[in-house]
Amino acid sequence: MTKENIKNQDGIGFIENTEALDMVKKEINRELTSAPVIIRRYTQHLASSGGKLIRAAALLICAQNENGLIHPHAVNFAAAIEIIHLATLVHDDVMDNAETRRGKITLQKKYGRKTAVICGDYLLCTALKLVALIPEKKGYLDLIVPDYMRRVCLGELNQHINNGFLDLSVYRYLKIISGKTAALFEASFYAGAVLNEQDELIISKYMKLGRYTGMIFQMTDDCIDFEKTEDYAKKPVQSDFEQGVITLPLIHAFRKMPGLRNKAESRELSREDINNAVEKSGGLSYTRMVSMKYYDKAMKIINELGITLDKKNKLVSVLEKACGFAKVTG
Amino acid sequence: MTKENIKNQDGIGFIENTEALDMVKKEINRELTSAPVIIRRYTQHLASSGGKLIRAAALLICAQNENGLIHPHAVNFAAAIEIIHLATLVHDDVMDNAETRRGKITLQKKYGRKTAVICGDYLLCTALKLVALIPEKKGYLDLIVPDYMRRVCLGELNQHINNGFLDLSVYRYLKIISGKTAALFEASFYAGAVLNEQDELIISKYMKLGRYTGMIFQMTDDCIDFEKTEDYAKKPVQSDFEQGVITLPLIHAFRKMPGLRNKAESRELSREDINNAVEKSGGLSYTRMVSMKYYDKAMKIINELGITLDKKNKLVSVLEKACGFAKVTG
Repeated sequence: MTKENIKNQDGIGFIENTEALDMVKKEINRELTSAPVIIRRYTQHLASSGGKLIRAAALLICAQNENGLIHPHAVNFAAAIEIIHLATLVHDDVMDNAETRRGKITLQKKYGRKTAVICGDYLLCTALKLVALIPEKKGYLDLIVPDYMRRVCLGELNQHINNGFLDLSVYRYLKIISGKTAALFEASFYAGAVLNEQDELIISKYMKLGRYTGMIFQMTDDCIDFEKTEDYAKKPVQSDFEQGVITLPLIHAFRKMPGLRNKAESRELSREDINNAVEKSGGLSYTRMVSMKYYDKAMKIINELGITLDKKNKLVSVLEKACGFAKVTG
Repeated sequence: MTKENIKNQDGIGFIENTEALDMVKKEINRELTSAPVIIRRYTQHLASSGGKLIRAAALLICAQNENGLIHPHAVNFAAAIEIIHLATLVHDDVMDNAETRRGKITLQKKYGRKTAVICGDYLLCTALKLVALIPEKKGYLDLIVPDYMRRVCLGELNQHINNGFLDLSVYRYLKIISGKTAALFEASFYAGAVLNEQDELIISKYMKLGRYTGMIFQMTDDCIDFEKTEDYAKKPVQSDFEQGVITLPLIHAFRKMPGLRNKAESRELSREDINNAVEKSGGLSYTRMVSMKYYDKAMKIINELGITLDKKNKLVSVLEKACGFAKVTG
């Protein structure tokens, strides 16, 4: 099959990169707003809340060829990845009894736990259907989606098992976020690379780059949780700590401030106390330092990929987004 | 590819039908007991409770060729279908807050809701991975699994939306069970048929047969709920009615016994009252009569399939199992 003949289900061939992300948005929206009547009010509720689409954007960039054009199947795949992400959020909210998400009331709060469990399952199936519908796809794209989704589940479970465990090690923390967040980033980079590359060594570099980007993304998110107000983060009311989720900034604070851990255990600390302690102990800058190590490794990989300057700049911009738009010198 | 060359991942070719179901059990067990350490204790808990495997058995029979041999991929596919079924049970128990299942304490009761939500997701992914791993499969087998799973979700949602709705119509009841139960039966029959048949008309007959078998299976289950004690049915303590699930025997009783509906609404009825009313009003025999209509349609299809007597007898035995081992004259 020549490149000119590659088309997606809508008969669309290679895509200008200025159009691709809008096409992903439309595809996600189409799936959510044209769902069967019985489930549509719930999926529409989700459609209206939007997301950052950083995984989709990364996938599209990785799928971009030397002429700056994007493989049409990348659009379908990117939509599937974002819908999987949405499904995990819906189930997360069930598990956490969360009331708000992305600044809106959650499905489980508005329509109940049963509805949210079912809708999460429905979205997972929808994503897998989108992947299955991609014609002429390379066989292993089929395989990786359930596999990466399992890794996300295991990361979630790992976090849950360690819920409230104040002696969580840095190693275990990194292991948790490598599952619950970095696995889906890795899947996105992998899928994009596979659609554009034949070389297995290069593909494995993209996978690493995706994993590192995901790690950075989660560490940034974990810092924000100690820094920002609810309005800014558009996150549930409760902080990670209040939900028993122990993250790197706090792990560092526990190590640096003797007595803090025991105060936390006996629930003597308000949210403000915790935030101040994390700030004062250098927990945030320590976490940023760790994430900068991943950033450096990621930059090294980007420089090894042998890609156009345009593609390189775009991959760097994804990395910067993962860092929370911080001004980064690479 | 000649038939002699068809092998599954373990290098196994066409299988004697006496061995196939044991191979499915082994494959399910392998998936559940060799899961990653972090999730293994939960999947092992599920492995030990066993199931009737009626969907797997039906799939294997449908996949049996004129020499009585079964396509090796049918084993993988049957294991996947049963694991999907298990995943839906785990999520059902979360939604219903159920305490026992198959005579054992439920995952959600023993290990909590979060663990059960994650394990259900993990099992769904495991099943889809098994399907994706099947080599040289016909493309559309990929596609149908998420599609049928979505229909199961929609059936569950339909049931949930109508929870406690005492004026549920027969039509709506049939629509609910056609999603929540019959869809996965249809998927099993379809997959089996596809692995053995080329003829689309014949495949569509198998699909109908699967749907009817699933309808009968659910109606039998709904009768048992009014007939048997908890020990016998190995079901959660609460009856369907107590959980707000309105089924055909009760719909009939409401129609036949004026005043019963209003008493049910004002919660004046014990479980025993309900069971007696359903029995006395002919709700059980009415439901069996409806399910026998499906049985007759199913038998008609079986007679049209042009299969060996051995395969025919086996398909009839699946139907009889769906009827609850009732002595059936066909």
